[in-house]
Amino acid sequence: MDRHLIAVEPATRPAMHEIMVAAVEEAGGTVVPIEQASALMFADPMAANAFRGILDPAPNVEWVQLPYAGIETFSHNLDTDRIWTCGKGVYAAPVAEWILTAVLASFRAIPRYVRATSWQSQEGRDLRGAKLAILGGGGITDAFMELTAAFECDVTVVRRRDTPYPGASRTMTTDHLHQAISDADAVIIALSLTEETTGIIDAAALAAMRSDAFLLNVGRGGHVVTADLVDALRNGVIQGAVLDVTDPEPLPDGHPLWHLDNCVITPHVGNTAEMGLPLIAGRVRDNVARWIAGDDLLGPVNVDLGY
Amino acid sequence: MDRHLIAVEPATRPAMHEIMVAAVEEAGGTVVPIEQASALMFADPMAANAFRGILDPAPNVEWVQLPYAGIETFSHNLDTDRIWTCGKGVYAAPVAEWILTAVLASFRAIPRYVRATSWQSQEGRDLRGAKLAILGGGGITDAFMELTAAFECDVTVVRRRDTPYPGASRTMTTDHLHQAISDADAVIIALSLTEETTGIIDAAALAAMRSDAFLLNVGRGGHVVTADLVDALRNGVIQGAVLDVTDPEPLPDGHPLWHLDNCVITPHVGNTAEMGLPLIAGRVRDNVARWIAGDDLLGPVNVDLGY
Repeated sequence: MDRHLIAVEPATRPAMHEIMVAAVEEAGGTVVPIEQASALMFADPMAANAFRGILDPAPNVEWVQLPYAGIETFSHNLDTDRIWTCGKGVYAAPVAEWILTAVLASFRAIPRYVRATSWQSQEGRDLRGAKLAILGGGGITDAFMELTAAFECDVTVVRRRDTPYPGASRTMTTDHLHQAISDADAVIIALSLTEETTGIIDAAALAAMRSDAFLLNVGRGGHVVTADLVDALRNGVIQGAVLDVTDPEPLPDGHPLWHLDNCVITPHVGNTAEMGLPLIAGRVRDNVARWIAGDDLLGPVNVDLGY
Repeated sequence: MDRHLIAVEPATRPAMHEIMVAAVEEAGGTVVPIEQASALMFADPMAANAFRGILDPAPNVEWVQLPYAGIETFSHNLDTDRIWTCGKGVYAAPVAEWILTAVLASFRAIPRYVRATSWQSQEGRDLRGAKLAILGGGGITDAFMELTAAFECDVTVVRRRDTPYPGASRTMTTDHLHQAISDADAVIIALSLTEETTGIIDAAALAAMRSDAFLLNVGRGGHVVTADLVDALRNGVIQGAVLDVTDPEPLPDGHPLWHLDNCVITPHVGNTAEMGLPLIAGRVRDNVARWIAGDDLLGPVNVDLGY
């Protein structure tokens, strides 16, 4: 099979399709119909239900590049006959900026000042030297650590494996979660959603946090038991939350989280479509070049782990 | 005159007085009444009107350490017979964090999301690679540049002198202000207030900015012509503003800036009293040690320039 021959489908999202076609060609590939292709660049993250219909008639496709970093909507459709890659890592920089925004806005009481219509009392906490607990030791954490190195924070990384995380003050495994988050100014969720991590922040975890701590979620809404968070925010168990992802998502009108002064919801903008397009295009370009050269691909999906 | 003998006055602000006394003693000094002192650590930034009454009966005082970085309230009382130092530089780190908070919150539309009670459309801009114009090339700018080096911004520093600012993409003098700010995503005021810089951001300067740009002021309220800013924010001349300082300050109830959705007022919290106390204490300790050793002092005030 000629590895230069690459399909980019579906075309339901013209901006992404166009930028992916350009990326394939920049990498030296030729865009062809899927029946002739050695690989598929899947060009619509919202079209997971079209996925098998596109792929099944194309047994020659040996490699599939998925868009986005989280692949929950695709994961039940992966098979072990092909190589799978996704966008993990490429979106890390904007998402790390979101985390920094959320932690600084929380520490500096920006939500309170946004709502103020009169001169307020002084409030604020420095990020420099603050204690942060980060759940997840992947690309987002890497990018966040790089951006914030100058702040000399005390960082605890909580991860599945007990491999020390480079640059962290300490690394702890998930079974010590409550201890790991108990002293943090901010607890940051930057995990993939798996069975193990679903609901990892529940009433007990929130109770383990400091009452002046903030919870920031840029992973998936399902990491947090929403009803428990509502209770914790209402009762001052923690000081506040900033959520870029919610469960349910989108958060419906009238949901109690919309009306808590100590909760800010951003609508899944860790990276926006506008920020993300050039980043996934760069991944496609890099990976097509690697595919043609026979090199290892970036962002491999572990089909068993589902991320 | 024995340089170990240091006065710390007035005692009207007990927390500051106490931490300054401790700092003098840590540096090897002895706290004495002002009549016996070689130097005065002025321990109440709000007591400028008590200043000459304390200092005039003490002709032996050769050096005065002022609190805070901005010394407008003291400047008409300085004389050329003594050495004057202030807190400039020491507050730079928290103030730089405020700037980063304000620029990230603006780029990520945090004020809009704070007010939202339903799922919003995606909005956001990356700081990485953004174009910033910073008015002022002092300690705050130094600290901000250090904190944000990893973001690889395109930074134009606007300053009085035409000395190139280290690390900036370009340095321009104040007489090219309008050109310097015309292409920036954010214009940051980090100046001292002098006659030359009062009202430097007026209707013409605002009109020179991009309509999707943000204005951030952490200098002094008087740098901005408030009425012109109100007009610019109302009419979409610029996208938004975050102000840590205002004119008048405190901003009175009912002022139009309180009711503009694209303006956030933070109540002079670039550094809070809580953040600032250990920082000025560190400056007192360093300078007393230098005074006793006969070394140059940190944070010298230029009496003629008034900062």
